[in-house]
Amino acid sequence: MAVGDNKIENVRNAEEMIKNAKSEGAQLVVLPEMFCCPYDNSKFYEYSESVDNGYAINSIKECAVKYSVYISAGSIPERADNKLYNTQCLIADDGTIKAAHRKTHLFDIDVKGKITFKESDVLSPGEQITITDIKGIKLGLAICYDIRFPEYFRILAINGVKLVILPAAFNMTTGPAHWETVLRCRALDNQLFIAAVSPARNYNASYVAYGHSMVTGPWGDIKIQAGENQCIKTVEIDFSEREVITEQLPLLKHLRKDLYETVYKKGVDLLID
Amino acid sequence: MAVGDNKIENVRNAEEMIKNAKSEGAQLVVLPEMFCCPYDNSKFYEYSESVDNGYAINSIKECAVKYSVYISAGSIPERADNKLYNTQCLIADDGTIKAAHRKTHLFDIDVKGKITFKESDVLSPGEQITITDIKGIKLGLAICYDIRFPEYFRILAINGVKLVILPAAFNMTTGPAHWETVLRCRALDNQLFIAAVSPARNYNASYVAYGHSMVTGPWGDIKIQAGENQCIKTVEIDFSEREVITEQLPLLKHLRKDLYETVYKKGVDLLID
Repeated sequence: MAVGDNKIENVRNAEEMIKNAKSEGAQLVVLPEMFCCPYDNSKFYEYSESVDNGYAINSIKECAVKYSVYISAGSIPERADNKLYNTQCLIADDGTIKAAHRKTHLFDIDVKGKITFKESDVLSPGEQITITDIKGIKLGLAICYDIRFPEYFRILAINGVKLVILPAAFNMTTGPAHWETVLRCRALDNQLFIAAVSPARNYNASYVAYGHSMVTGPWGDIKIQAGENQCIKTVEIDFSEREVITEQLPLLKHLRKDLYETVYKKGVDLLID
Repeated sequence: MAVGDNKIENVRNAEEMIKNAKSEGAQLVVLPEMFCCPYDNSKFYEYSESVDNGYAINSIKECAVKYSVYISAGSIPERADNKLYNTQCLIADDGTIKAAHRKTHLFDIDVKGKITFKESDVLSPGEQITITDIKGIKLGLAICYDIRFPEYFRILAINGVKLVILPAAFNMTTGPAHWETVLRCRALDNQLFIAAVSPARNYNASYVAYGHSMVTGPWGDIKIQAGENQCIKTVEIDFSEREVITEQLPLLKHLRKDLYETVYKKGVDLLID
């Protein structure tokens, strides 16, 4: 979706797209990173809100009930405890927040003459890897730069996650160079699906998002892909495909746990419910 | 390189190619997986040898001295302790074996109607992640299916490896689907170079290798790529490129070690020298 400077208009646009996605049969709608706010350090405070009582999240909660659909509210600048976070809320079809993920890896990059951004100047990092479920299917939540870290996805996979929801906003440098490769490889390595959703490209923004929202699958293939402009893409995810692939190419079974292991230091009880 | 049924001819072909690579300026020559032997479970025992006193490795050692060049002897079926291993020897320019890596992940795959192979029927797995060095530059050794496991490459990276040597033989199913994606993503994630070298494609073999040997770099790009036929490709690796990228996109610095960690269970002293 296209994201502009007006928070109320952004939310109205999201509402309209959720309505249309539902009419196309969607059971889960995913909005992009910072769907209600320009991706710009100087804007995050002004557009921020509490996830418990803010205009954007309340509006999406109402949508979830009205259209009886699950919604990942992409991400918003969340204000809590005098800090700002980049936060994804997964909202159930009864309007409750099923799980919330605060971006754990802040995007600090400085490719000279191309792209410089330092989220950590204004945002605080999340302190957990986030797993939840919809109707018995385990979902992982992650945001944009979190995709860069194989450990995060490995921990999701070995805890049974079958689908990762990833609102994201790669840019015109890292997008063409890395977006597809990383999304395909992470899904392939971990034998799961990833739904990665970006804002539409806007050349007038200070940060130009790459677009190309896509869903990748456990064979490392692209199930569906958007272009650079606002659009709705729907895809049916057949989780039985994953069962076939994990039997034929049993990567997770072939892990040499006697040699190495990816450990999660916050304990094993990841499920937030 | 093309690999046929005649071990002596395979070794002679390798010798000729090493000579030609040296004349093109190579300082390190990498041969493919099973360079002296068809990739076929029924052939491994017959073609196997000790790395200390076998025809293939002795011949490559002599080449290393004669042409004053480092050589990864791709891999051979190694016979040791009444077991067979898929083993890569890195041979120094003085003819000594600098390091040897036994493939740690055996290739057991069963994609119905497309590709079935079960290395573990005849081969034993290696028991270590292998790091060595050439002139102060740390190198990781891995073989083919080892590339499938992000943990292996992460442990190489956090121990300072800048180049991974990967003799490999993907096939006509996994090659087109996964080869490039995995090689690019592993190099990108771990901010290092990977030299992946395959046998040439041979439609008369029981196992048809994909070919497409390539070197990928820390930006996730392809530095050089072969086609499906025998050829020599040379590329100069500029390690300073890695320094620039790790400064601009500091992925290894951004690891959330407080949340997760990839641990190597064999201890920290990985350097074999």
